[in-house]
Amino acid sequence: MTTIKKKRTGKRAQLAPDKSNAGLRIIPLGGLGEIGKNITAIEYGDEIVVIDCGLKFPEEEMLGIDFVVPDVQYLVDNREKIKGIFLTHGHEDHIGAIPLVLPRLDVPLYGTPLTLALVENKLLDARVSYKPVYCQVQAGETVKAGKFEAGFVRVSHSIPDSLAIWVRTPAGTILHSGDFKLDATTVGDQGTDLAALAELGKEGVLLLMSDSTNSERPGFTPSESVVTKSFEDIFRSHKDRRIVIAAFASNLYRAQHVFVTASRFNRKVVLMGRSMLSYIELARRLGYVDVPDELLISSADADKLSPNRVVVLTTGSQGEPFSGLVLMSKGEHRQIRLGAKDLVVISATPIPGNEKLVSKTVNRLFACGCDVIYESGSDIHVSGHASREEQKILLSLAKPKYFMPVHGEYRHLVRHGQLAREMGIPSKNVFIMQNGETLCFGTDGRANVGEKIHSGAVLVDGMMLGEFEGSLLRERKELSESGLLTLSMVIGADFKLLAPLQIESKGSVFGLDRENMSPDIELAAGKALESLRAGSIERSFLITEIKKKIREVISRNFRAFPTIVPMVTTLGEAGESRELQTPAAKPKARRRARSPRKAPQP
Amino acid sequence: MTTIKKKRTGKRAQLAPDKSNAGLRIIPLGGLGEIGKNITAIEYGDEIVVIDCGLKFPEEEMLGIDFVVPDVQYLVDNREKIKGIFLTHGHEDHIGAIPLVLPRLDVPLYGTPLTLALVENKLLDARVSYKPVYCQVQAGETVKAGKFEAGFVRVSHSIPDSLAIWVRTPAGTILHSGDFKLDATTVGDQGTDLAALAELGKEGVLLLMSDSTNSERPGFTPSESVVTKSFEDIFRSHKDRRIVIAAFASNLYRAQHVFVTASRFNRKVVLMGRSMLSYIELARRLGYVDVPDELLISSADADKLSPNRVVVLTTGSQGEPFSGLVLMSKGEHRQIRLGAKDLVVISATPIPGNEKLVSKTVNRLFACGCDVIYESGSDIHVSGHASREEQKILLSLAKPKYFMPVHGEYRHLVRHGQLAREMGIPSKNVFIMQNGETLCFGTDGRANVGEKIHSGAVLVDGMMLGEFEGSLLRERKELSESGLLTLSMVIGADFKLLAPLQIESKGSVFGLDRENMSPDIELAAGKALESLRAGSIERSFLITEIKKKIREVISRNFRAFPTIVPMVTTLGEAGESRELQTPAAKPKARRRARSPRKAPQP
Repeated sequence: MTTIKKKRTGKRAQLAPDKSNAGLRIIPLGGLGEIGKNITAIEYGDEIVVIDCGLKFPEEEMLGIDFVVPDVQYLVDNREKIKGIFLTHGHEDHIGAIPLVLPRLDVPLYGTPLTLALVENKLLDARVSYKPVYCQVQAGETVKAGKFEAGFVRVSHSIPDSLAIWVRTPAGTILHSGDFKLDATTVGDQGTDLAALAELGKEGVLLLMSDSTNSERPGFTPSESVVTKSFEDIFRSHKDRRIVIAAFASNLYRAQHVFVTASRFNRKVVLMGRSMLSYIELARRLGYVDVPDELLISSADADKLSPNRVVVLTTGSQGEPFSGLVLMSKGEHRQIRLGAKDLVVISATPIPGNEKLVSKTVNRLFACGCDVIYESGSDIHVSGHASREEQKILLSLAKPKYFMPVHGEYRHLVRHGQLAREMGIPSKNVFIMQNGETLCFGTDGRANVGEKIHSGAVLVDGMMLGEFEGSLLRERKELSESGLLTLSMVIGADFKLLAPLQIESKGSVFGLDRENMSPDIELAAGKALESLRAGSIERSFLITEIKKKIREVISRNFRAFPTIVPMVTTLGEAGESRELQTPAAKPKARRRARSPRKAPQP
Repeated sequence: MTTIKKKRTGKRAQLAPDKSNAGLRIIPLGGLGEIGKNITAIEYGDEIVVIDCGLKFPEEEMLGIDFVVPDVQYLVDNREKIKGIFLTHGHEDHIGAIPLVLPRLDVPLYGTPLTLALVENKLLDARVSYKPVYCQVQAGETVKAGKFEAGFVRVSHSIPDSLAIWVRTPAGTILHSGDFKLDATTVGDQGTDLAALAELGKEGVLLLMSDSTNSERPGFTPSESVVTKSFEDIFRSHKDRRIVIAAFASNLYRAQHVFVTASRFNRKVVLMGRSMLSYIELARRLGYVDVPDELLISSADADKLSPNRVVVLTTGSQGEPFSGLVLMSKGEHRQIRLGAKDLVVISATPIPGNEKLVSKTVNRLFACGCDVIYESGSDIHVSGHASREEQKILLSLAKPKYFMPVHGEYRHLVRHGQLAREMGIPSKNVFIMQNGETLCFGTDGRANVGEKIHSGAVLVDGMMLGEFEGSLLRERKELSESGLLTLSMVIGADFKLLAPLQIESKGSVFGLDRENMSPDIELAAGKALESLRAGSIERSFLITEIKKKIREVISRNFRAFPTIVPMVTTLGEAGESRELQTPAAKPKARRRARSPRKAPQP
């Protein structure tokens, strides 16, 4: 993978321990001011434990970037101190960076069976040969890691086997909520362990770090059991139709609902989409879903049944370009063709940024003639995160001395912080922090924000590990908006053209009108050459002059601004032919990248 | 402007009248299956009237495109039949294509004073010298246009002076709702003229075309007066703060609320943002807002007042990159610097697609330390479009024989159609149509969908009028994801390099690791040349072979896939140096564009 360090905050961490190392430091390296790449270090003296190691999906303007991982240079520099990485649950924003990060740290991984199985799948998918040391834990257990004691508390979330994690240090106990809600009726599970949280609160929590995703939502997040009810209503009122349900593959509760309801209404289930098949296969193997073998059938077998005996459970609830539902909506799915006799249920709400993709999918589904249930108001999806009243309950159970909202964009953290103050935590004990800031606890037990340490985002594209300051993305943005025009000139010692100029363009309006535009461009390049011959420009400025002249003519005639790349070869003077490269190219070449061969990739 | 025809539907219209010309045809050329570029032709015999002429903002994947206008070739081919363009109101999606379209048609424009003044501003902004024939109308009036009689009915919307338009034809009356809601308490206006609509219904409406934007929303859209109340509450509870309000510049009702509330709470108003200033200036001149001169002050004068005596009314409610609010949130605004003593109110909801921009703006505002009111639940914004209950009321007043939902994405049209059926309109009389489809009324008064006519989208980028099938956008997409690598080779008659190869890259990982990557690329190009010398490839395939060899090495070593543009110049054989262009370039050159000189641009 090409990974590009986008930005860093703070100075490079010192390898030598600093004075604050005497006490406790909380170091969020990701997940603050963003949804994604969650990772937090808890450091006491010369020991560190890490909670989560997630990725983030690229923002729209990160053109061509596959995903983003946290910059863990601080952890690499201090790897000998790390006692382990504790995983709260198996979502990408909590485990997704492991294939890139873990081989560089080589420390044990702690997690529940489902979480660790998902990590193992990820490593296989990424073709990473590194073999982690897995330490399987269960909710309710505690483990020793160096001077730390850590404990695992069952929480409800949209994937089974989710945990809150507490870490007991000589300075006090840190409680990290993980991603949670309070739903007490989650199918096949017993909901968040409120008693354990109350017990912790009673013993004393120094710092609570809590999930801020839904801190803008008043009230309580509805229970997953709401969906059970809705599915029943839908199956009952659409007995004559085939039903297609799109959901997150990782939401095994949702899948279980589908299996139970299908079975009750005497339908068979067809699974569609690579990740749906792989999650269900894993969940069945580990016992996280309960499906009789005869309930699941292939689409070939489904074709032999009456359509109203079939449910299709598919990926694509976010309008992902090559997912099952999207291919069906485009009429491009190899097995399923949708029509007037189908009902499609989108059992998810769009993740911020995916609204347009989902909206287009719904439009296409309607155009197929089928009926579609998709609104947020129709109780076919519930969030996996606590709303404000639940956040308040956690605060009141844990009774922390200090509070740090985590897992949210800046506005979510601010709103969660306001909530904590409303709950009686003094303003000075509420810390709205940024990635790379450290929360230090002095020997007097007082907390304050300490020195910033090196943190940031590493953009991953392709296969090379590189270090880069964003000019690659700027170039891609310019190309995407105006395209490019490149020309090749061969000149002799007398600065005269030895062959006709060659022009090529990509993504530029030039390509629309090549015949009319070429003479103007040739003229402009010719003028630059003339200036050189006449001695009015220096030879080293020829490239700059050509660009300028061509830019003038294109912007004047077409109001277009392509990137212009002239390449000039001079013949007849040995060793000089490379002299006329773009001046900008030189410094770029000096900005050395870490080559793939040296990358700590297994 | 470079305009690129993206796609067209149906066959090119015949100039000779076809048989259906005997009767009435409704021809939606834009606005169906999309929000934007609204334009509809009503044709009877050899006469046409057009309703609206709007633009659409580009979709995310339309890289570098400024805006999209409807393809009006059908109207151009039939321009002598057109009696006029009737405008419902002054929003961009209803008037924005006029600068490009009207000069090609040269027909009179009908609209209310505000709408026509906004058109005039648009033509000035676009530096279009064409002088339209303006026919100013008022709600309640009727006009004759050829065989047609047209009438204008006052409707509530988020911009004053909005109209529904009816067109009486020998075959019956067509009612077009324009963009409407039923709000009876709109400030300075008297709401939708229900009596006029009832009267029309009584006389008989053959076809209703009605605004579908909010057909997914149950109930009634709240009245604009809700916002008045919220503004009062906000001003009352934030007496110690400066208040910054962001709103759509065209929403003059919202501006009026701000003026009235500011005046009541003894504050002065500073206007920020180019379009805010221009709309308010126009609205004051024409009497659409009522502002005492002393209420408006400059930001310099505001600096002399206590901050809590000031309200800033600004653009940027959609997170537009260079708008007032966004510059403030980034600390880049020249006059306003935000801090802990400021309250920001975003009096708008994000238009679909703008969610992320708005969200980022809110995050940055919180990071400035100010408080922000932005939720949809806080009654600081109301929609300008009718919800389902209002759509039902219009249907029940107009009592149309036929119904065509307009102004919406496909799902909006479908849901609006379902509503009409629930209201008792027979399914066969409800037409969910697509742009370019025609609704024909036979001599028996029966409607059916007739032949498709030429329609489509013209993408506007820069200044040239072009015709193109989307490969420009495809090239831009490829460049944006993987960048480009271009190389220049000069070879002699013996196919040997006469000078070192030159390599340049833009937006490619190559730029990250030039020194390590160059030798591999030189080697790959050299191999292609060798194959040529050895006779194992034809000379005309050299470019293809170079691309292939380089693609292999880059994808193997870096999993990167830049666009590769080799340019080879051969010396020593006259007339042959241009022979070795990319094979693909040739057909592209033949796909001739309409040059700007020939474009029917004034």
